[in-house]
Formats: sequence, C-alpha cells, structure tokens
Amino acid sequence: MPEFLELVPPDDALQHWMAHLPAYILETEVVDTSLALGRVTAEAVIASYPLPSFTRSAMDGYAVRAADTFGASDSLPAYLRLVGEVPMGATTDLALQAGECALIHTGGMLPNQADAVVMVEHTQSARLGEVEIFHATAVGENVIQKGEDVTQGEQVIGQGMRLRPQEIGGLMALGITQVRVFRRLRVGLISSGDEVIPPAQELLPGQVRDVNSYSLGALVEQKGAFPVQYGIVPDQAEALRATAKQALAECDLVLITAGSSASARDLTSQVIGELGKPGVLVHGVSVRPGKPTILAVCDGKAVVGLPGNPVSALVIAILLVAPVLQKLAGISASSPPGMVMAQLSLNLSSQAGREDWVAVRLSRTAAGYQADPVFGKSNLIFTLVRADGLVRIPAAATGLSAGEMVEVRLI
Amino acid sequence: MPEFLELVPPDDALQHWMAHLPAYILETEVVDTSLALGRVTAEAVIASYPLPSFTRSAMDGYAVRAADTFGASDSLPAYLRLVGEVPMGATTDLALQAGECALIHTGGMLPNQADAVVMVEHTQSARLGEVEIFHATAVGENVIQKGEDVTQGEQVIGQGMRLRPQEIGGLMALGITQVRVFRRLRVGLISSGDEVIPPAQELLPGQVRDVNSYSLGALVEQKGAFPVQYGIVPDQAEALRATAKQALAECDLVLITAGSSASARDLTSQVIGELGKPGVLVHGVSVRPGKPTILAVCDGKAVVGLPGNPVSALVIAILLVAPVLQKLAGISASSPPGMVMAQLSLNLSSQAGREDWVAVRLSRTAAGYQADPVFGKSNLIFTLVRADGLVRIPAAATGLSAGEMVEVRLI
Repeated sequence: MPEFLELVPPDDALQHWMAHLPAYILETEVVDTSLALGRVTAEAVIASYPLPSFTRSAMDGYAVRAADTFGASDSLPAYLRLVGEVPMGATTDLALQAGECALIHTGGMLPNQADAVVMVEHTQSARLGEVEIFHATAVGENVIQKGEDVTQGEQVIGQGMRLRPQEIGGLMALGITQVRVFRRLRVGLISSGDEVIPPAQELLPGQVRDVNSYSLGALVEQKGAFPVQYGIVPDQAEALRATAKQALAECDLVLITAGSSASARDLTSQVIGELGKPGVLVHGVSVRPGKPTILAVCDGKAVVGLPGNPVSALVIAILLVAPVLQKLAGISASSPPGMVMAQLSLNLSSQAGREDWVAVRLSRTAAGYQADPVFGKSNLIFTLVRADGLVRIPAAATGLSAGEMVEVRLI
Repeated sequence: MPEFLELVPPDDALQHWMAHLPAYILETEVVDTSLALGRVTAEAVIASYPLPSFTRSAMDGYAVRAADTFGASDSLPAYLRLVGEVPMGATTDLALQAGECALIHTGGMLPNQADAVVMVEHTQSARLGEVEIFHATAVGENVIQKGEDVTQGEQVIGQGMRLRPQEIGGLMALGITQVRVFRRLRVGLISSGDEVIPPAQELLPGQVRDVNSYSLGALVEQKGAFPVQYGIVPDQAEALRATAKQALAECDLVLITAGSSASARDLTSQVIGELGKPGVLVHGVSVRPGKPTILAVCDGKAVVGLPGNPVSALVIAILLVAPVLQKLAGISASSPPGMVMAQLSLNLSSQAGREDWVAVRLSRTAAGYQADPVFGKSNLIFTLVRADGLVRIPAAATGLSAGEMVEVRLI
C-alpha cells in the first residue's frame, strides 16, 4: 500500500486496526499480591469469606438492644446496666438481656442479642455499672453487618483488571496473598535510518542519535509492558526484514520507527506488508503530528510503523499504540486517560479535516490552569520535554480560540 | 494534642505540615538513562551540543538557494541544475552555486550555500540534470536550523524533574546515557491494632486482616518510592514506640495506621508526639473520609498517623501524603493529578464546613462520562475497588446536584 493514498481519521484508524487484531490470550503466572501492582488479573477473584467477617461496631460507644433506647433523649435518658466490655480482636461471649449494654470500640464484635451501638458522645456513665443513654437508637445504627462490603461467593475483582493499590488491599483483606495474572507483554522496538546512531556513540556530521528506541521503550514500560530492544537497522529491505521477523517471533507487538525520508517510510511499509497476513491496514492517518503512521496485523500480531520524528512517534504511541497495548495485555475495562481543564492562552489554528494535537505547558492561575502552547517548528523531542500535555483540535475545527477552556491530556 | 480539639481544613493542614518540613536533600546516585523512567534529576542537565547538531531538511525535495526560486510558479517554473544528492547520515561536500540544486531527503544535511528546501511535490525532473521548480521558496523554508530545538549550553532539564518518556528520549538525543538522580525515598509502614493480623494468617472471630500495609505500600510504590514494611504492632505504647523509632531512623517518612478505636488513635498520637520535635502539627482534619488524621514532623522527618479504616487511610494518603512524598523526593514542579469531567448521576449531600470526597464509578455515555457514586456505609476497601475516582464536595457546599458536571480525580 503506497503512502497516503487515503488518510484515515485517527479514531477510525484505531477501530479498523483493533477490529483486525485476533483474540490474543497471554500465558498466565502466579505472583505475590504484595508485588502485583499494575499487573492484570487472569481470572476473576471470588470472595471465600464475607467482609466484614463478623458484625462489628462502626463507633466507639455502647452495644445495646435498640428497643431499650426507644424514646431516650437528653431530658429523658434511658438507663442501661453495663455488663462488660467487648475485647478487640477476639470473639465475645457476652449476650445482652433486656436493659443491658456493653462497652464496645470501633471494629469490635457485636455481642449476641445486641443490634445497635450508641455513640459514646450520646452517653454518660451514671454510676458504677450503669450507663445513661441520651439518644434513641434504631436497629442497625452504627453497626456494620457481616458481609456488608462483600458477601461470600461474590466476584470482587473481574478478569482483566489492572491492579491498583485498592485492589492489592482488597485481595489482602480476603487473605488472597497470591494472584494469577497475565504475563507482561513483550514489545519489540526497532529503529531504522541510515542517519541514526546509538546514543553513546560519537556524533559525526549528518548523524542523529537514536531517541525513539528509548522514549518509546520508556512509554512501553510506563504502560506495564517489557520493551525489547532490537537496535538500529540501516535502510535496507533485507536487514529490516530479518530484524522485524525476529522481533515478531519473540514479541507480542512490534514497533518500527522508520527513517525520516519518504523512501525510508516506504521501505518500512513494504517490509511490514511482507511480514504476514493481512499486513498493512492503515497507511497514513489524518492527524498532526503522526501522518505517516502505518498500522498492521501480521500473522496474528500487531505491527506499527511509526514516523521517525520523535514527537510524532511518541504522540502516536500515546494515542494509538497505548490502547492496543491495553487490549493485548488482557485489560478488559480501561480507565480514561488523565485530563486537566485549562484555559488556552493563545489562538491555535489548524487545517480542517485533520486532527491536531498541540503540546502545551500548564501553569497555575488564580482561576485554575492555563495552557500555553509549546511551539517548535522542528518538532524535536524537547518540544515534549517542555510540555505537560496535549490539546486536541478536532478535525472539524479550524482552530481554538484564546480564552477557551480545553481538555489537556497529561503526558 | 488530644484528638479533634480543632479540625483543620485539608488544604490548610497540608500547608501547615509542609511549612514545618525542613529542607530535605536526598543522597544522589548515577543511573543509566535507559533505566531512569520515573527517577528525579538531582542536577540540571545542560546541552553540550546544539540540537539539531547540523542544519537539516524538514522535507523530501531539493536543497536550493532561495533567491533562485523567486517568482517561480506553475506557469513560470524556475529551472535549476541538479548537482548531486545529499547522503543520509553523512556530511556533504556539495556546495551550491547560483542556479544549482541538490536532491535531499528529510533529515539530510543542507549543502553549503543552500538556504531552503523545495518540497518534491512542487518540482518535476525536467530532463537529466535539470529540475523544474513550481514554487517560490523563502530563505529557511523547510529547513531546521542547527540549534533550533536546543542551543549549546542551554539548560534542557531542570533539577528536580521526574523523568518521563520524553525526557529519556531527550537525554539520549544529547548523548547523555547516564544521569544523576536522587535516590528513591524510603517510606516506613506500620500497622497497629490488636484486631489486625497478617493476610496469610487464618482469621479468628473478631480479627481483620492487615489491608493498609499493602494498599499504602502499593501507593508508595506507584509514587516512585520504596515501601519498607514494619508489620503489625499491638496497641501498646512501648511496642509502638520502639517500632516507630526504628522506622524513623531507617526511613525518610513514616506512615502509621492506627487501630480503629479512639483509644488506639490516641495512643498513636501520643507515641508520634514523643518521637521528636516539633511533633504533632495537625490532629483532626475537616474531611470525610479521614477526619482522625495526624500530621507530624519529628526531628526533621515527616510522620503521619492515618485512620485505621482502609478507605480513609488510602484517600488521605492520596490527598495529603502524596504531595509530601513528591516534595521529599526532590520534585520541584509537580504535574497536576489526572482528572476527568463527568456528569454526576445522583444528588450528593454533605455537611457544610467539611470537605467530602465521594468514590465514583465512571461509565461512558454518548455525551462523555457519567459518574455514579459508589455507596458503602461501612467504607471498607471494596468501595474503592468499585471506584474509578473521587469527587470533591467543597467545604462551603452542602452537596452536589444530579446532572452537574464534576471533576473526577482518577485513583
């Protein structure tokens, strides 16, 4: 497919690409829950206990039979017989008879026959062995019922959930100290271009250092996958084909950043097209930066040809590759990306029919955030170093106006 | 300081606490740039080269002397003598005389005397050795000047920047393959409570498993610091004091989650107060969840007493502890937290004078996102497992209305 026969809008490109990705099931492994932050559950988690596992007090106060407090008020307190104290962390053999109460702490187990807790603030120790209650208490008041958070047998975490701190805590609450997760995705990274050299190498005139392998590798790492580096390949079909084949065999997804010239991009497209069926699905996206993007599926695996320009490559990786990484990683319901609302400080113009993503820097103002566009005609990597986020100018618009409130996608 | 003498608004509490944190300079270490994602720069990075390091073409086309194209148009093309092709990744010894041009690819080095590039789309090979130019080209057009992104000697990354994929790429572009960063923060975690047992242990009636050590540990990890686990301490002053002293000596910040009763919280406050000067600065914050929070500085280190309730502990860690982790880690300018605008699906009521943070679940609608409050009277950990974010009800408000657009802070 030659370059740019037809530019596809980015959302359509992503949908078209995703529709051709075959069902992809990663192998699973068992890891310690305490080390599972960011991993993706390979099976649903079922609670084998209710939570809480016993009916407990939500307050410091007195466990009572609610009926004994009916009508109690500041002017007409109820008087209850104090029969003991509920120990923390242990069962209690206390059982309340009519007219009795027991001292209880937050988290303490409710005694038998008790059905409510009166907050200590609504009580007073009248005399030894007696408590004055100034507040009528309803059945269940200040009580957390057994199973109120989670019932036994309930599915508490679905398959395909990326584990956050609260899931780690929730698993521990249920005594689940190991969890079955999908293995991490392996993402192959290939840089091409006769002008590209490894960063540690001395720069000769006309050469540039490899940026993309590392900025994309870090993005891949940030998304919870393993970057696998295949180095820099010269702009020769044979060399690129051999490296791409190896990466495709060893990884779950392959990212190739093309050399910067059109002929280098055509070479990338040609090599990707020959890697496997169905091959190139999208070649050219109506987005800036990132127009020369190639989206492909080769023998069941996703392959991407990214533009050589470091800003284009990273922005496309954020917009189009990250959602596919999530899908391949087995994540079933993804959280929305983080945004910040900000007031645009300058007019931005854009070509209708093309979606633009403009790098902006955020600054705090009395009213909230202000977004200052970071300009850089050369669109080199430090444009994004200076930026906090990206603002989208929709394809239908010809720009955005200074003063407008815009959503800034944090990068 | 006894509990809740005066509840402090959360923003004031954070400011007051931060104002008492002494300047805290972590030791530094040198790490490979390729492994430095999320680390914090310990010194500013200065460019020892300009970027780009040579004047290069931004397009595929012909390097020209702009003056030779003045007046050129479709109907009146300029004819230039083709004197060669600029090689990729190498210097060129081509120098253009008047009326000459050279084939150049995107990223190629501009020949001597050339000052612009004509896009290939605006040219035609007339006959061997001659190119027709259909477009008048200005000096500098389609050219990226040497140093246009970064000049030699420019500070490109400040001290105290948390490295993102674009900074990793930017460092590599400059050949900086190792970088000096602050060592990672060590955060000590202590759980207390006679009712709390390790997650792997069999649960007896009245006991609960330790959630906080692990949910907070995961949050600390997510923020780029090391969690150091000190286990579960019974509600005894001596035991808690000994463990807290050890944690304070070995870590940069200590988080103690109190047992759930008021007496356990008072014990925590007492022990923190004795750890060092100035001691407890805030005891009780006008926020829900998280009212019983204790913020302290003890002999130059931050110490926090978090409520035992897992939701309260995690929400306060997100709202108040995370900013201090950033400060202690040496981060000088922090990005705003990720938000999503969503339409609230239900009325939420709140007590005036208290800031409320309500857990919500997001769902996609045709119009954007909808935020459904996740209710759970018991406020146990699965409330947050079911949630995507938190909505703030300001202290001055008595609630939010269904249909309102609200900022959801992603968790």
